[in-house]
Amino acid sequence: MTARYIIGLDYGTDSARGVLIDAATGDQVADCVHPYRHGVMTQSLPDGTALGRSWALQNAADYVEAAEDILGKLGRGRVIQSIGLGFTASSPMPVTAEGVPLSQLHTAEPHAYVKLWKHGAAQSHADAINAKGGAFLDNFGGKLSGEWLLAKAAQIAAEAPAIWDETGRFIESGDWMVWQLTGSELRSLGFAAYKAQYSADTGYPVHLVPGLSSRLADPLPIGSPAGGLCEAWRDRTGIAGDAIVAVAVIDSHVVLPAIGAVSDGCLTGALGTSAVYLLLSEQFQPLPKGIEGVAKDGTIRGLWCYEAGQASFGDVLSWFVKTFPAGATADESFAFYNGEAAKLPPGANRLVALDWWNGNRVPLADSRLSGLLMGLTMSTTSVDIYRALIESISYGARSIVELFEAGGFAITRLVLTSGLAGRNPLLVQIMADVLGRSVEIPVIANATSVGAAIHGAVAAGIVADYAEGTRRYGAKESTTCAPRAEHKSAYDALYRNYRRLCDDASVRYTMHRLNAG
Amino acid sequence: MTARYIIGLDYGTDSARGVLIDAATGDQVADCVHPYRHGVMTQSLPDGTALGRSWALQNAADYVEAAEDILGKLGRGRVIQSIGLGFTASSPMPVTAEGVPLSQLHTAEPHAYVKLWKHGAAQSHADAINAKGGAFLDNFGGKLSGEWLLAKAAQIAAEAPAIWDETGRFIESGDWMVWQLTGSELRSLGFAAYKAQYSADTGYPVHLVPGLSSRLADPLPIGSPAGGLCEAWRDRTGIAGDAIVAVAVIDSHVVLPAIGAVSDGCLTGALGTSAVYLLLSEQFQPLPKGIEGVAKDGTIRGLWCYEAGQASFGDVLSWFVKTFPAGATADESFAFYNGEAAKLPPGANRLVALDWWNGNRVPLADSRLSGLLMGLTMSTTSVDIYRALIESISYGARSIVELFEAGGFAITRLVLTSGLAGRNPLLVQIMADVLGRSVEIPVIANATSVGAAIHGAVAAGIVADYAEGTRRYGAKESTTCAPRAEHKSAYDALYRNYRRLCDDASVRYTMHRLNAG
Repeated sequence: MTARYIIGLDYGTDSARGVLIDAATGDQVADCVHPYRHGVMTQSLPDGTALGRSWALQNAADYVEAAEDILGKLGRGRVIQSIGLGFTASSPMPVTAEGVPLSQLHTAEPHAYVKLWKHGAAQSHADAINAKGGAFLDNFGGKLSGEWLLAKAAQIAAEAPAIWDETGRFIESGDWMVWQLTGSELRSLGFAAYKAQYSADTGYPVHLVPGLSSRLADPLPIGSPAGGLCEAWRDRTGIAGDAIVAVAVIDSHVVLPAIGAVSDGCLTGALGTSAVYLLLSEQFQPLPKGIEGVAKDGTIRGLWCYEAGQASFGDVLSWFVKTFPAGATADESFAFYNGEAAKLPPGANRLVALDWWNGNRVPLADSRLSGLLMGLTMSTTSVDIYRALIESISYGARSIVELFEAGGFAITRLVLTSGLAGRNPLLVQIMADVLGRSVEIPVIANATSVGAAIHGAVAAGIVADYAEGTRRYGAKESTTCAPRAEHKSAYDALYRNYRRLCDDASVRYTMHRLNAG
Repeated sequence: MTARYIIGLDYGTDSARGVLIDAATGDQVADCVHPYRHGVMTQSLPDGTALGRSWALQNAADYVEAAEDILGKLGRGRVIQSIGLGFTASSPMPVTAEGVPLSQLHTAEPHAYVKLWKHGAAQSHADAINAKGGAFLDNFGGKLSGEWLLAKAAQIAAEAPAIWDETGRFIESGDWMVWQLTGSELRSLGFAAYKAQYSADTGYPVHLVPGLSSRLADPLPIGSPAGGLCEAWRDRTGIAGDAIVAVAVIDSHVVLPAIGAVSDGCLTGALGTSAVYLLLSEQFQPLPKGIEGVAKDGTIRGLWCYEAGQASFGDVLSWFVKTFPAGATADESFAFYNGEAAKLPPGANRLVALDWWNGNRVPLADSRLSGLLMGLTMSTTSVDIYRALIESISYGARSIVELFEAGGFAITRLVLTSGLAGRNPLLVQIMADVLGRSVEIPVIANATSVGAAIHGAVAAGIVADYAEGTRRYGAKESTTCAPRAEHKSAYDALYRNYRRLCDDASVRYTMHRLNAG
């Protein structure tokens, strides 16, 4: 019998990755990575056209090139049953009614390119929309981010009306890539809900941008098939088999099935330079104040997924070792500081920090806030400070967990993922101690690409549901880190110092004054 | 005509210094230093008897040995017209009615030795006195320090009643040294007022400690003669001439005449690991809230002197370069940080710090407070932090200046002294900018010993008054640092952030919680 395979693609900020998995055994057979030719464009277009402050663009042609390379390498001559995609979001682009990127037609026009998720130049348009408000923001904390699709559409309509006129469809890059692969424009409910405030009841808030209605399309739930790989792409990649392509998934959500986080009550923390927390729930509850957003069918089909995050996480520790190195490399510095900090008891340093180096997302949604360090004395050491920073990002995580619990959610599992969780056991232990609960760290290679592949397998019906998908293709092992009782009770007391500072309006006011310069 | 000389002695914490000055020309002819044989005893007595936590003792015999060495080296065979002494305070000791230190009679009894100014083990006795309060504290902010004479007397009476019974006189080491040199027990109004809350109207608050009344003596104003050097000491030192010895002066006050700070409206900042500020005034005004103490005739005869201080000053910068070195030595680190920090504009770092590494003296008198750093972001550098620390200690100085001004004092001159002022021109410039006024930095060698010598010259009538003393023997040059107008106005705005944090009771409450551990 011919071997059959599934493929997962993970379109990140700088490169795309792919994994090839044996559909029957779940073994990872091959993987590869393809950096984007033009990377992230923040200063100028390829022809030299200068970009404004806070701009961040990408070139849609790079995505096609990556798909051709990866699918060819992994799939040529093989029977591929399904293909799933994770993609950065919100990264929308204007295209013609036929799907041709306007950047292909107007190579010197910045507004014709993909506005990458971290493009920040649409913030004023988000501010204007927020000033009016509206019920469409009820599930998103009442506040539109300048990084979301609606703000980016408003920016083009206002700043480049000719481009907006020529825009047949305004589409997330992930949806556009699915369109290229299948020949069908089928959008993802994940992008639509979290990045364009779509709801099944009221659709998109199209009143916000003139002409928006005709440029969008209703989405399909996550785990839906968008169609088989089209003939043109079979020719380009040499792929055989059904090759059912699933609708795309937000990259920060796509990992869940790979780490077994597919059921009610599971809270996943993806720990990187920043941290994203996703809580799955069968029941809808109104958004707890401070939590960022919620949608159904946008992350795991059939479940509500609540989203929260810390704007600064690993960044805080990276800042410290970069600013105050204790070795020739960052790795050496981390090894030194982690080794020494592990010897200290909780709170021995008598320090407390606010982990707001990049501002605060949850619960304050305030980018003008900044980091704070209190308790400095003549006996404070650099290691004391490093440990206080680890404690502070753990306190930030606890704040989010407590918001969920106060909102009536029962968190039955806490799963941590990302390279940081694997690399920094001291951090994981302190998080367990501060959170006062066991945390699981699944062990699996290429986790996000595998997650994408499972979404494809679900869409193609290769597995009955996500539970089966995660059993067959997801992580086979995990480590568990339990809280130490004495440390937990020490941190219960110390955490109150952190909360008191968070709740001090005068402290935040002074941070605003500093930020205003 | 035979040359005539004056001598100044400066008894510090670790050693005594002396200077020999030509009485007519004012030229410094010689100087020398004598470290104390037993140094500061914090762990045990010379015989091995262990000391408690926070104890700090000295041996009176060391002072005699130092005087014999220094006076012999400087004075032997010379005509000495006067001798002035500065001395650490409060550093009292129990002696017999004849002046024999009890430590000579009970060498294994800790309570028989000099309790050095930084002996902290009497704090609970100060707390008990403060709980009752009393009008005698009106000129001292309502609060007795555990480092002052009354607390130390209370400690002996309570903890070593047999020693207290045997104590004929309880006396500051500076007064005792004058007694040794002259044969007369004549006490200094400086010690009596600032360290024992003596006032001309009500005397000492002798009700606080049983039997205290008979163990003290009324003091003489600063600049008074205590008598000529006695025969025994003339034999030991080979000194000729009148050798009029002045009553002793608190070591942190004694420098004033050497730097020309002897008149109404002059504020002197002595910048060291901590900072002391002394404001001279012809008129009495009630103590501004937060200022630490005031007395007349205790610093410069005829003037009131108001005292304030920062518990952390140079210490904050030393902590930073020690904790985050940028060179092989502290000097190299300071050179690097000062060079780089000088390139930054005010507030460019968008940081603000509270300079409370050793707690706060003025206006909060709270040792449980600690340092704070706010405004940290991913772009914050180590140099940004260093500059913010310089700014914070300058803001602390401004807080003190503003307290005086709010109390109705006109500050006509601001004089900075100490090695730190000379070594760190960036600090001095930022202080001028933050204070918004020109600061003078007198240039003179052996400043404190010269100050002591001028007090002796005044007491002996060699000069008509302090003004003449300072002209003849004091600093001949000074540098002036003027504020830069743009920086001044920037700091006027930035200083408000510092003040807001100082005034935030919630911030202080959290510091107390941290301090409680």
